[in-house]
This record gives sequence, C-alpha cells and structure tokens, in this order.
Amino acid sequence: MDTSSQEFQKLYSAMSAFVTECMSGHDPSHNPAHVHRVVALAEKILASEQSKKPTKQFNEAEVKLAALLHDIGDRKYISKLDTASGTEAVDPTTMVKHALLAQGASADLAGRVQTVVSHVSYTTECKDPSVIRNLIAEGYGELAIVQDADRLDAIGAIGIGRCFTFLGAVGKKYCEEGKWEMGNSIEHFGDKLEKLEGMMKTQTGREMAKIRTERLRVFKGWWEDEMHI
Amino acid sequence: MDTSSQEFQKLYSAMSAFVTECMSGHDPSHNPAHVHRVVALAEKILASEQSKKPTKQFNEAEVKLAALLHDIGDRKYISKLDTASGTEAVDPTTMVKHALLAQGASADLAGRVQTVVSHVSYTTECKDPSVIRNLIAEGYGELAIVQDADRLDAIGAIGIGRCFTFLGAVGKKYCEEGKWEMGNSIEHFGDKLEKLEGMMKTQTGREMAKIRTERLRVFKGWWEDEMHI
Repeated sequence: MDTSSQEFQKLYSAMSAFVTECMSGHDPSHNPAHVHRVVALAEKILASEQSKKPTKQFNEAEVKLAALLHDIGDRKYISKLDTASGTEAVDPTTMVKHALLAQGASADLAGRVQTVVSHVSYTTECKDPSVIRNLIAEGYGELAIVQDADRLDAIGAIGIGRCFTFLGAVGKKYCEEGKWEMGNSIEHFGDKLEKLEGMMKTQTGREMAKIRTERLRVFKGWWEDEMHI
Repeated sequence: MDTSSQEFQKLYSAMSAFVTECMSGHDPSHNPAHVHRVVALAEKILASEQSKKPTKQFNEAEVKLAALLHDIGDRKYISKLDTASGTEAVDPTTMVKHALLAQGASADLAGRVQTVVSHVSYTTECKDPSVIRNLIAEGYGELAIVQDADRLDAIGAIGIGRCFTFLGAVGKKYCEEGKWEMGNSIEHFGDKLEKLEGMMKTQTGREMAKIRTERLRVFKGWWEDEMHI
C-alpha cells in the first residue's frame, strides 16, 4: 500500500484515533506522544537504512502502522485498555489485526502488522532471541526498524524521563513492599536500558543508540556523585 | 541541645519515626528517602559554612530537626498526611511544633523548628522574599541551610528523577485536561529548577547548586536534540 495514497492516509488516521482512544489515559511514559515519537524514529531509521542499502526493500506502510500500534495490547497497561475499549474480554494478541481489518486493511497487511507488533517487546525477545532473528531474516525487516525505534525512545534523556515517570505512575506495584524508591529506576538502567544498544538490529539504530546510551551513563555518574553526600 | 546527647538522639529518632509514618506512602519524589538526603545535605552545608565562618554560630539541633521535618504539612501531600495521622483536622502550620512538644522538646526548640519548616517553601518565598531575608538576618541562619539543602535535592540528576517521578505520581492533577505530558516536567526546569541556584542563601549551597544546575542544562540539551527527530 502506497503511504501517499488517500486510502493509506485514511487507514492511518483511523488507527491513530484508535491509539488515542486506547492510550490517552495512560501516564506520559506510554501515551500517544510516545507512540508518535516512535513513528517518527521509525520513519527516520527507514529512510536512513534505505539510503544505506538501496537494494533492500522495506514496506513503509507496515513500518508506520506497526510503529503506531506497537503498544496496543501491552501487558503493562492491558487492564486500562479493557476499560478504554469498553469490552470485557480483549485478546491482546489479535487486537491490532482486528482493528486494522475493521478499517478495511487487507488480511495480509493486518496479519503482518500484528506479527511485527507481537514481537516488538524486549521481554519476549529475551525469552528466545532466535524467534526475532528468524522473523527478520525471513522477510520481516520492518520488525527490526520498529523495535529499534521503540528502544531508542527508552534511552537517552527521553528514556530517563520515561523511566522515572513510569516509576511514579505505575512503578509501585513492581516494587517490593516499602521499596518504592528512585533507586529502582537507576537499577533499571543496568538491568535493561544499557543493554538495548547491543540489541539494535539496524546500523542507524546502533548509531543513535550509542549517543543515547552514553547519556544514560553520564546521568548515572551524576546520580552516584549526588547520592554520596 | 547537644546533638550528641542521648536526649537529642531519642528526640530525633522519635521524629524520624513520625516522618516515616506520615510519608512512607508518598511517591519517591517526596518520601522519607528524600528527607534523609536533605538532612545529609544540611549537615554537609552546616559543617562547610562553620569552617568558612568560625565566628558564626548555627544551632545544629535545629538544622537537623528542621531538615528532617521540612516536608511535614506540605500542601502537595496534605490530604495523605491527614489519612496517615488518622486525624480529621490537621493544621499544617503547627504540626511540627506539636509533634516536637509531644516528644518532650522545649517550647523554644519546637517553635524555632516550626518557624524554619514554615518558611522553607519556594512558593512561600516567591510571594514575599523579604520575609525570608529578614528571618535569616534576624537569627534564623538555620533556615538558609535547610532551604539550600532542600533545593539542592530538587536539581541535578536527583532533581530530574524527582521531577519526572512527581509527574507520573501526582502530576496529572496539575496538568490541563489531556496535557499530562513529559514536556511539563521540562517546562518546570525553566519555571523553577534553574532559578534555584540564584536563590541559594549559603556559599556552600551556591557552589553545589552550580554543578547541579549545569546538569539540568545538559539534560535539557539532550532532550531538545532527541525531540527533534
């Protein structure tokens, strides 16, 4: 599907409204603004990768839609999604496909975007990295781009902001009783955020991640300095 | 009161338990860990100021107790304080004094610590800076130290972490409808945090604030870079 076509623009616009409906109540670490940054990052990576490798083809419609929809069905917020959509039993593994089909997307496009969205997660990848590697090798290059875009928004200054915002908004339930502390966010840098650079799938993503990861390290240095009063 | 005396240590310990009771449910931007960092900063500033100006005397007991109790009665969290203390009508302007008197502090000590605590706030100072200047000039040098300590914890990496944590935990009610966004925290840098360095009352505070304010500026530069995808 040509992304400059009216048909695509109508579909993208309807999906964007769906994202707003599902996520507008979310805290600012995982809200529509995050999603739109990820779309912009994915477009940037796509353009850069295509200029680096003109023979390799990516489906731009899939990249944009998967970036837009990548947090639909996210387990961290699924109870809120249920409420937002007003349904009792939402299946997070097919929400994206159904939403696309309902707006007239082809079964192929809807299925491929759902596949990308279902495999973006860091936790899913950690469980079995070969699944992701194989998907990308077998024709899902779009997944590499969307994953890198989402992970870039988790690091650097924006990632730091999101990490603490999430701690304040949702973090209490992930902390041990009486241990709702900012140190948990700093631990998250080492547990996950600093690892993302090494998991980037595109050259463009790796280059951008290098800069943002250095920012995490500088920030952590400041933190340690200030904690040792 | 000699801070190395058993009497002071018993009082400090009882007040510390009171702070934990009042604030343990607070999000990590304004919890007991914040308070204990402010106490450590106040002790550091006090030691440094006394070495710079050996003729000037500060009351160490007042500095430590006021730093420990500085957020008791904070309007941002007052409804939670009511619940924590189990009373219906808590007067935030006398809570500290009453708590100290109940633990055997002298009326003079309790009154002076209450006065410091009641004048720590940035908002209060902005309304009429002369009130603060006069208090400090008229024998409340301890207020200068406690204010600087509290404000140092609002800047630098720790301040950045607290700013976003507060946004996630409490910020929604301070944002316009549909505008609960991380950009509000970045605006808060310019609206308040970057101004604190110029409002420091002690030389030690000013020196430490300079370093931490530069960190705010570096972080904001990263933020702007990442926002322009």
